[in-house]
Amino acid sequence: MHVPDADVVAISDIVAPAARECAAEWGIPRIYPTPEGVLKDAEVDAVFICTGTDTHAELIIDAAKHGKQIFCEKPIALDLPSIDRALRAVEDAGVSLQIGFNRRFDPNFREARRQIEAGEIGTPHVLRITSRDPSPPPIEYVRCSGGLFVDMTIHDFDMARYMLGDEVAEVFAIGAVLVDPAIGAEGDIDTAIVSLRFRGGALGVIDNSRQAVYGYDQRLEVLGEKGRVSVENPLPHTAVRSVVDGDHAPPLLHFFLERYTESFIEEARLFVAAVREGTLPAVSGADGRVPVVMALAAQRSLVERRPVALEEISG
Amino acid sequence: MHVPDADVVAISDIVAPAARECAAEWGIPRIYPTPEGVLKDAEVDAVFICTGTDTHAELIIDAAKHGKQIFCEKPIALDLPSIDRALRAVEDAGVSLQIGFNRRFDPNFREARRQIEAGEIGTPHVLRITSRDPSPPPIEYVRCSGGLFVDMTIHDFDMARYMLGDEVAEVFAIGAVLVDPAIGAEGDIDTAIVSLRFRGGALGVIDNSRQAVYGYDQRLEVLGEKGRVSVENPLPHTAVRSVVDGDHAPPLLHFFLERYTESFIEEARLFVAAVREGTLPAVSGADGRVPVVMALAAQRSLVERRPVALEEISG
Amino acid sequence: MHVPDADVVAISDIVAPAARECAAEWGIPRIYPTPEGVLKDAEVDAVFICTGTDTHAELIIDAAKHGKQIFCEKPIALDLPSIDRALRAVEDAGVSLQIGFNRRFDPNFREARRQIEAGEIGTPHVLRITSRDPSPPPIEYVRCSGGLFVDMTIHDFDMARYMLGDEVAEVFAIGAVLVDPAIGAEGDIDTAIVSLRFRGGALGVIDNSRQAVYGYDQRLEVLGEKGRVSVENPLPHTAVRSVVDGDHAPPLLHFFLERYTESFIEEARLFVAAVREGTLPAVSGADGRVPVVMALAAQRSLVERRPVALEEISG
Amino acid sequence: MHVPDADVVAISDIVAPAARECAAEWGIPRIYPTPEGVLKDAEVDAVFICTGTDTHAELIIDAAKHGKQIFCEKPIALDLPSIDRALRAVEDAGVSLQIGFNRRFDPNFREARRQIEAGEIGTPHVLRITSRDPSPPPIEYVRCSGGLFVDMTIHDFDMARYMLGDEVAEVFAIGAVLVDPAIGAEGDIDTAIVSLRFRGGALGVIDNSRQAVYGYDQRLEVLGEKGRVSVENPLPHTAVRSVVDGDHAPPLLHFFLERYTESFIEEARLFVAAVREGTLPAVSGADGRVPVVMALAAQRSLVERRPVALEEISG
Repeated sequence: MHVPDADVVAISDIVAPAARECAAEWGIPRIYPTPEGVLKDAEVDAVFICTGTDTHAELIIDAAKHGKQIFCEKPIALDLPSIDRALRAVEDAGVSLQIGFNRRFDPNFREARRQIEAGEIGTPHVLRITSRDPSPPPIEYVRCSGGLFVDMTIHDFDMARYMLGDEVAEVFAIGAVLVDPAIGAEGDIDTAIVSLRFRGGALGVIDNSRQAVYGYDQRLEVLGEKGRVSVENPLPHTAVRSVVDGDHAPPLLHFFLERYTESFIEEARLFVAAVREGTLPAVSGADGRVPVVMALAAQRSLVERRPVALEEISG
Repeated sequence: MHVPDADVVAISDIVAPAARECAAEWGIPRIYPTPEGVLKDAEVDAVFICTGTDTHAELIIDAAKHGKQIFCEKPIALDLPSIDRALRAVEDAGVSLQIGFNRRFDPNFREARRQIEAGEIGTPHVLRITSRDPSPPPIEYVRCSGGLFVDMTIHDFDMARYMLGDEVAEVFAIGAVLVDPAIGAEGDIDTAIVSLRFRGGALGVIDNSRQAVYGYDQRLEVLGEKGRVSVENPLPHTAVRSVVDGDHAPPLLHFFLERYTESFIEEARLFVAAVREGTLPAVSGADGRVPVVMALAAQRSLVERRPVALEEISG
Repeated sequence: MHVPDADVVAISDIVAPAARECAAEWGIPRIYPTPEGVLKDAEVDAVFICTGTDTHAELIIDAAKHGKQIFCEKPIALDLPSIDRALRAVEDAGVSLQIGFNRRFDPNFREARRQIEAGEIGTPHVLRITSRDPSPPPIEYVRCSGGLFVDMTIHDFDMARYMLGDEVAEVFAIGAVLVDPAIGAEGDIDTAIVSLRFRGGALGVIDNSRQAVYGYDQRLEVLGEKGRVSVENPLPHTAVRSVVDGDHAPPLLHFFLERYTESFIEEARLFVAAVREGTLPAVSGADGRVPVVMALAAQRSLVERRPVALEEISG
Repeated sequence: MHVPDADVVAISDIVAPAARECAAEWGIPRIYPTPEGVLKDAEVDAVFICTGTDTHAELIIDAAKHGKQIFCEKPIALDLPSIDRALRAVEDAGVSLQIGFNRRFDPNFREARRQIEAGEIGTPHVLRITSRDPSPPPIEYVRCSGGLFVDMTIHDFDMARYMLGDEVAEVFAIGAVLVDPAIGAEGDIDTAIVSLRFRGGALGVIDNSRQAVYGYDQRLEVLGEKGRVSVENPLPHTAVRSVVDGDHAPPLLHFFLERYTESFIEEARLFVAAVREGTLPAVSGADGRVPVVMALAAQRSLVERRPVALEEISG
């Protein structure tokens, strides 16, 4: 609907009623019991893989074999061998692969990147990213998530690379269980600070929390030699009330689909455009691999209590 | 597209190629050379009248006679007898009529109204509306517009009634030609301040200009016994740059379709919902009439240099 | 203390204990039972007249006769003949007179004036002043105040002239009793909107209320051909709390001595500097007279329900 | 002048003309060629030590021996043995010692601390401090400064302890020379990120730069279980200009004496009050020691590329 240059002709969902409901709502003509159905459908030029993370790599490989253009949600996989097999299959098949790091297409972050690229703040010196969820996910989700770094910080790792147009050389992570002991019981953390050193020399820091009760909090700031650019949270409305005890502005949006509506639409639009025009995807397979390397490095840093170079992980 | 519960089955435009282009883009099955075609189409339940102001009243009357539900852009007409004939036709036909005062559905203004209605600032004492266009319309448009009050301030008159949930008893207007002498040459003004006295006792003021070079500027504020609520302009993005000479935030949106995208969608959605459910329209024919009375009163005030009661105009 | 180039050598207060207390606190050597004592003190070069309004004109005349340089709080008097006698005495004596319109020296308003004077927004088109007290003064004060326009709006009338560097030609005022019926019982109003037409063509509007429960609210905005400049309220601190129900910023300062501390110091500093250097006062006797004319015109407009030209009042 | 309960009766400066000029400007009766003169002056109850860092410890010891109450600028010394000797001398003499961590008295930070202490954001989880100078100090200053951590970050280390009311257990620092290679040539860094782990479990991060061209940038934010409190930079004025290319707000204050005027006055006022009333100093000798420990730990972390526990440093 929001991407007029594409038609959705087929759908498959492991939960059959969900597929039926969705097909009915959006007028999707064909429903398949398994992904293979979609992949074998000759009318299908491109597929969106939005399944559980553990199925991404195999589905990419299958789709590539069927010559489909591929959009896949992040992360490609939780381990590098799986990722590398998937990327090789894509390369061998000569198809296109775009990874779902949608935040790059948020108009606010995009404008910051545009200013940095245009040199308006000069060479970047310090990057700061604050990224906090309104509340922790269900504990079942935490259990299968692969941990905070690969599940949540991965978006910030991607943002760090995108925003500075540079690669991170080394990370150092500290973490804690401050929000919910059940998360700790799963061997995970809910609060973290990750220091970054970029290859080009800039420093960076990401702070994460699974719980910001005031809403979905996603900000960043880059200090450069000629100034800084900062991105604040968009607010749900601009009405402010001033009463005896001061000014009241609304809480932030709470749900990522609300917060990033525009960026989800834009990433789909760009994928379709790239497929139709045969141009490179906006977020490549390599762009999908590096943040996983960063997450694995952060995880090792947390465990071994020392800075970890990305080279140690990616070989 | 944005209103899933309605299908657009027919279109007519006095500029035939425009109708064809639009029909092609949106997949509208039938194009009629005249509005009568649409009105006679048995599959058409409801019509959107988005033609020139001078045709609104007659088209409403025709549509009512054909038993169509009606959405009509503001203003219904520039004179009260035409408006009253149209409203009578609607009443006689027992159809529904919604007038296009879309700004009521802007999420920012709507939230302010919600807070006022909920009593969060107590009884309103003072309303202030600032409403400025980025730049004056073409002089041909000015010539046929009916003048600043009926063309531009009319939105603010509607907003004043909506925001306070009260009727204006009396207006006083001053105006000037400060932006473009050509506007003055047409007997119109480009800058105005209109004082309002509400029946319930509150005071109000609207300031208008045809030229705010920094963008489409639409703000308001209500002071009440227990506080105030103010609505600021939404910004195109939240990236702010801090450099040697200070902070730089982006200019406002410049185009009303950008600024009010959400409110246009919402007003269409509400119209369709009211038609389907047989409920009262969100902006009634009477709501369409009163702002014209206010504009005529402001015009008389400007000419006669005195406060003018609405009763003088509406009889 | 904050004006190092002047020594306070004498004081007089009709409330003797107040004079004694003040002299003790600030180390003022001489206390006189009446103002004449101060005026006859040969060591006194300049006097600050901070008494009740009804004594200003006579004290100015006396001080001028004694050859003292004079600072006097606003307004000089509530009627023009008294003002004119005082100004004549000042002129005859060849002394300097500065009137206490302190807000001109607020760093925020001053910066706005600087930008306008520097042409950064081009020719001004529209001035908007919002000026609201946190809560109404005691009813005894209201009774002797001369009414809202001469007591409260007078500051805004001065600000209007200062900010645009232009004179007002005509005013139109509406008013209401919305805050406290006791104010109405004294024949006064507590809420007002005053439209202004400047000689140079610009339009303006002042909105006043005796009660803004969220604090002392003093803002303004000037729209010009090349942009606008707006002055917001300074806040007591920059700490903002974000919790479940949204963002909380502190209420405005509530007391004019807090809000305008810097401007009071600066006006005294400028007075002393002008006296020492023999330069023109920053706010002249004429600057003290015009806002009273504007207040009288606004009062007549309110009563006669019509726009009133300043010429009608000042002859 | 700003501290009415104290008289300045003597001064000494190793630059004699500076002492004379200052004495003349502020009416200080006695000038001594050496600090001993001040310390032997029987009329002197308390001294302010505002000399170079390398003289602080000895002067504290001398002043303590003479029974004077002591205010001393930070840091007490660059090494712990000197600090400990000074603190022992103070304890032995039974005099009071206040250290010049003035930022605690900034009204903005103080309000944030008040809210945290009052439990308004619940248990703190994450602290973020941004602290940037407008431009690097002269290279001669850098050479004697003791390095970025002990010279600049020391204020942020104090702020971290103050804001959370908790002690830091461990730090990890990364640094870079991005602003000026001359700073690197002195073996120092100009950009740093320091991660903190508090004893109570909270995490923290400080980012520093010697160059923020837009002004003296000092912000912080604390995320807690029930919300967050953030402190933004105060601006020199509230006038904002909106023109064709967007909104323009003024740059930040550039000089620490401007930025922290109120906090410098308040720390002196509190010192005098504590001396007169015999109460504990607002910032104790121990408060002066811990940030030096933190700076030394950060320095070791930087060199050894590992997290360093404060216990390793302070024994």
